Amino acid sequence: MTKKIIIVGGVAGGATAAARLRRLDEKSEIIMFERGEYVSFANCGLPYYIGGTINKREKLLVQTVEGMSKKYNLDIRNLTEVVKINRDNKTVEVRNLSTGEQYEESYDVLLLSPGAKPIVPPIPGINDAEHLFTLRNVPDTDRIKKYVTEEKPQSAVVVGGGFIGLEMVENLVELGIEVTLVEMANQVLAPIDFEMAAIVHDKLKAHGVNLILEDGVKAFEDRGKKVILNSGTEVITDMIILSIGVRPENELARDAGLPLGNRGGILVNEFLQTDDPSIFAVGDAIEVVDYVSQAPAMIPLAGPANRQARIVADNIYGRGKKYHGTLGTAVVKVFEYTIAATGNNEKTLKQQGIDYRVVHIHPGSHAGYYPGANPIHFKLLFSPENGKVFGAQAVGVTGVEKRIDVIATAIKGELDVYDLTDLELSYAPPFSSAKDPVNMAGYVASNMLEDSIKTVQWDEIDSVVADGGVLIDVREPSELKGGYIEGSINIPLGDLRGRLDELPKGESIYINCQVGLRGYLATRILLENGYDAINLDGGWKTYSVAKGLVSNK
Amino acid sequence: MTKKIIIVGGVAGGATAAARLRRLDEKSEIIMFERGEYVSFANCGLPYYIGGTINKREKLLVQTVEGMSKKYNLDIRNLTEVVKINRDNKTVEVRNLSTGEQYEESYDVLLLSPGAKPIVPPIPGINDAEHLFTLRNVPDTDRIKKYVTEEKPQSAVVVGGGFIGLEMVENLVELGIEVTLVEMANQVLAPIDFEMAAIVHDKLKAHGVNLILEDGVKAFEDRGKKVILNSGTEVITDMIILSIGVRPENELARDAGLPLGNRGGILVNEFLQTDDPSIFAVGDAIEVVDYVSQAPAMIPLAGPANRQARIVADNIYGRGKKYHGTLGTAVVKVFEYTIAATGNNEKTLKQQGIDYRVVHIHPGSHAGYYPGANPIHFKLLFSPENGKVFGAQAVGVTGVEKRIDVIATAIKGELDVYDLTDLELSYAPPFSSAKDPVNMAGYVASNMLEDSIKTVQWDEIDSVVADGGVLIDVREPSELKGGYIEGSINIPLGDLRGRLDELPKGESIYINCQVGLRGYLATRILLENGYDAINLDGGWKTYSVAKGLVSNK
Repeated sequence: MTKKIIIVGGVAGGATAAARLRRLDEKSEIIMFERGEYVSFANCGLPYYIGGTINKREKLLVQTVEGMSKKYNLDIRNLTEVVKINRDNKTVEVRNLSTGEQYEESYDVLLLSPGAKPIVPPIPGINDAEHLFTLRNVPDTDRIKKYVTEEKPQSAVVVGGGFIGLEMVENLVELGIEVTLVEMANQVLAPIDFEMAAIVHDKLKAHGVNLILEDGVKAFEDRGKKVILNSGTEVITDMIILSIGVRPENELARDAGLPLGNRGGILVNEFLQTDDPSIFAVGDAIEVVDYVSQAPAMIPLAGPANRQARIVADNIYGRGKKYHGTLGTAVVKVFEYTIAATGNNEKTLKQQGIDYRVVHIHPGSHAGYYPGANPIHFKLLFSPENGKVFGAQAVGVTGVEKRIDVIATAIKGELDVYDLTDLELSYAPPFSSAKDPVNMAGYVASNMLEDSIKTVQWDEIDSVVADGGVLIDVREPSELKGGYIEGSINIPLGDLRGRLDELPKGESIYINCQVGLRGYLATRILLENGYDAINLDGGWKTYSVAKGLVSNK
Repeated sequence: MTKKIIIVGGVAGGATAAARLRRLDEKSEIIMFERGEYVSFANCGLPYYIGGTINKREKLLVQTVEGMSKKYNLDIRNLTEVVKINRDNKTVEVRNLSTGEQYEESYDVLLLSPGAKPIVPPIPGINDAEHLFTLRNVPDTDRIKKYVTEEKPQSAVVVGGGFIGLEMVENLVELGIEVTLVEMANQVLAPIDFEMAAIVHDKLKAHGVNLILEDGVKAFEDRGKKVILNSGTEVITDMIILSIGVRPENELARDAGLPLGNRGGILVNEFLQTDDPSIFAVGDAIEVVDYVSQAPAMIPLAGPANRQARIVADNIYGRGKKYHGTLGTAVVKVFEYTIAATGNNEKTLKQQGIDYRVVHIHPGSHAGYYPGANPIHFKLLFSPENGKVFGAQAVGVTGVEKRIDVIATAIKGELDVYDLTDLELSYAPPFSSAKDPVNMAGYVASNMLEDSIKTVQWDEIDSVVADGGVLIDVREPSELKGGYIEGSINIPLGDLRGRLDELPKGESIYINCQVGLRGYLATRILLENGYDAINLDGGWKTYSVAKGLVSNK
C-alpha cells in the first residue's frame, strides 16, 4: 500500500493532509511542493500582523519547512512550482523558482491544494498604481507592513467589504490611517443579510471609516493616488487594498483536462476525488456542496479546508471517508463587534426559491443584572413546513460566535426549531441567561409554527402603514423619544387589556415594541381576544438600524 | 378550556409557567402563591450582589409582584404559604404570612414549583452559631450583605465546594475576606472529575483561599467563632456560609400522598405530571431523568426549571409536550477561570457500570499567534462501542462554555465523536483555531476508535512505570525543566525515527509529551514501525496538575 504522494500547495489543506498522510503511513513517500517560500503559515493572521495586534513576524510562521519536514518526515520543496500534470504517465512537471531548473516527478497519487488568489480586475490604471496591494501570503504582508511602517500613509482605500476587507479596514484604522471602504453591493459581509450588515455599517462609521456602498472603482489615476468610482466620486489616497474576492487556482487542473464547475472550482466527488481517480483536491480551489441547500458552492474558508485535508488523506489510503458539504460557518471581528453566521442567509434562500421564515431577536449576551451584558442581534432562518434550521446570523460584542456555533452544531444534528427550545446550554449570570438566546430564537420560531403567530418584517411594515394598516406601538411613552415608526399608535402593553375597545375587529392589527418580546405578548393578548394581530419581527431595534434611523452606537 | 390554575412558588419555574399560561389563554384564572416577599428574582445573581459585582439591590428584582401581575394579568399572592393540598376536593389551604389568616382556594390544576432548600445538618453548636448563613433568596442575601458591610468580617468559612459555595468563596475574597473552604469530598465541583477539579484547586489557592478537602465540620463552638473539623483542625472565623447542597421542598407533595423518589424528589411523568393528573410539578423539587444514562437524578439548575415551566404550561392546556430529561449542563466562574460541564462525568459512568473512554486535551482558546489565547483543559467521555458522546468538561479562561454548549448540542443531536470532527464551527484568529478544540477532541477520540490508538490515564501511569514499563518522554530536553514523570526516558519526537533501535520490540512502550499531541505522533510512528505504543492521555499537563506537581498558575 506504500505510495508516492505528491501534494501541490503547502498551506492549509496541503500541510494538514501531509501531516495526516504521514501519521497513517510511515513508509509513503510524500513530496509537498509550495510555490512560495513559506508553508503552513498563519494566513488568517496576516491582517493582524499588519495592524500590530500580532507583534512578531515569526508568529505567522506556524511551521517552518525544516521543522515540518523533520517532524513528519516529508520532502517539502518550497519555492518550487508545479507547472503541468501529465495524467497519462502520472508525472508532474516542476520548476525550481530559485534556480529555474525544471524536472519531472512521478506520483501514485496527486493532491491538489493550490488555494485561491485575489481577484485583480483590469481596472484602468491598475498597473500603474504604485501602492496597490492584495493580501494572500507572507510576502504580500511584508510589502504592506513595510509600506505602512516606512511610508506612514495617512489614508487608504479598501476595495471590497468581505472578511479580509473588513479585517484590513480595522487594522489600518488601528494604525491611525483614514480609511475609505468601497463596496459594490449595498452592504458589507455578503454572508449576512442587509439588516444585520446595517449594524456593522454603523460601527464602521462610528470608527471614522468612510463607507461607500453601491459603488465600484472605475479607474485609478495619478499612479494610484486617485481612485475614481463609478458614481464619479474621487478619493485621494496613499494606498489601496484590493479585496474584492478570490478566484480558485484552477489552471493546473484545467490544463490537465480535469472538469471545473461554473465558478471555476475543481470538481470533486464526495471522497474529494477529481474525475481522475489518482488526483484528489481540497481547499479554496474546489467546488463544494452547500450543506443546507445541497447546491454547488465556492466557500473559501480555513476550517473546511483543514477538514477536507484530513478526509482526503484518509481516502488516499482507501478509507472511503465522505465530505458532507460546507455549512459556511464564519466569524469576523470588526472593532468591538463580533459578526458570525452559519448556513444559508435570506438572500441565498430567496435565490433558490426555498420557502423560509425569519426571526430577529436582540437578547442580552448574559443576564442583564450581571455587568457587561450586551445585546446580541440574532437572526434565525427556518422552514415553515417542518421547522428545519436553514441558518443563523449574529452581531454583538460578546458571546456571538458561541450561539452561531451552537446553531452550526444543531444543523449538523438535524435539529429543528423545536429542538432549539430544548437545548440545555450552560447558564450562570456571567455567561448567559436561563433561557439562552438560542433557546429564545427557538421559542419565537416555534410560536410562529405552533401557534400561528404571524410576523411582519422590517422592510414590509412601511407599506403596511402607508396602505392604512393599524400599527400599535406597545412601548412606554418614554421609549418613543428614541424614535418610532411613522403612523404608529402608542398603547403601552400594560394598558392594552383595558383599551381593547379602541381597536378595530376584523382588521389586521400590527404591533411594534422595542425588540419584539412585548409585541409578542400583545399579539397573544389580541389573538386571545379575537383580534387578528401581527407582530413586527425584531421590533424597533431591527427596523431602526436597517432603516438607518438610529445609530446602534 | 378555561381553568383555575394555582401555582405554588413564584421564582424560576413558577413565574415562567405563569407567564406562559397567560400567553396561551387570556381567560384562565391564575393564582401564584409565593411564601417569600419576592417573585422571579435573580437567584443566580445573589452571590454577586454580596460581592459587589452587581452593585444595586434592585437589579436582583427582575420582576416585581405589581409589574408581573399587570403584565400577565395574574393574581400573585406573595408572603403567602400553601400549607396543605386537599386532593379529594381539589383545594389548597393557604396561610397569609403577614396576617396569619388561613383560607382555602380551589383549583382545577395545581402546579408545584416549590424549589429546594439548603441542607442544614444538625451539627453540634449550629443553633448557637451567630454568623452562620445559607443562601437561597433575597432575605438571605440581605442578611449576608448587611453583615459583611456593617461588621466587616476579616475571615469566613465556606462549607461545601459546589456552585454556590465557590461563587461565595470568590465574592468573599473580592471583599478582602480571608476564606477557608471546607469540602468533604477530595475535590470541589462534583459535576467535574478530580483531575479537572485539581486545576480549580490550584486557582483557589493562588487567590489565597485556604482549601481543606476530605474534611467536614464536626462542631461549631464559641457561638460559631470556632469551626472544628472531623480531622481535628480548628478554624477561627468571623462568619460561616453553609452551602453543602439542597434538599427538595417536598413536604406539601409528600403530605398529599404524591409519590417521591429515593432522594426525595417529587415524581413526575414525561409530561411533568405527578401521580395525580390535576397536579404538575417542575424545578428543583422534582426528580428528573438523566438525559444521557436515563437514570433518575436530582439536578437543581435554573435552565431546566425554566424549560420545564414552559412545557408544563403547554401541558396544562393539553398540548402533550414531553420533557426529555436533564443533561446537567452547567457553568461557573471561579476567579479568572470558567468551568463548565455537560452530560455524564467519569464518576457517574463508573457508578453506573457504563463502559467509556476518556480524552484529555489542552488546546488554545483561539489561534496561538493571536494575543490572549489561553489553554482550555478539555475532557471528553464517550462510548468505545459506537462513539456516542457521554459528556464533557472544560476549564480555562475564555471560550470554555462555548465548547461545552457545542457538546451539549451535539449530545441532543445524537452526534458521535466522528461527527465532532465534522462540525463546522466559526473560526477567525480571535475566536478559535481552524480545528476547533471540539474538532480536536473528536479527532483524538476517533483515532482511538478507528485506529486503535491506546491511551493510558494520568492515574495509571505511575504503576506502569513502577512495574518496569518503558515510558518515553518525547518533549525537548528544555521542557523537562518544568518537571517530568519519574522513570521516563527522554527521546525528543524529532529524534525518535533515528533512535528506534533503542526501544524494545514486543513490549508496550508508553509515551508522554506536554499535552498529548506529540505523544500521539510518536505513538503513530512506533505503531507503524511495529512497536506496541500507548500514549499518556493529556500528557504532562493533565498528569502534573492532577498529581499536584505543578501549579497551573
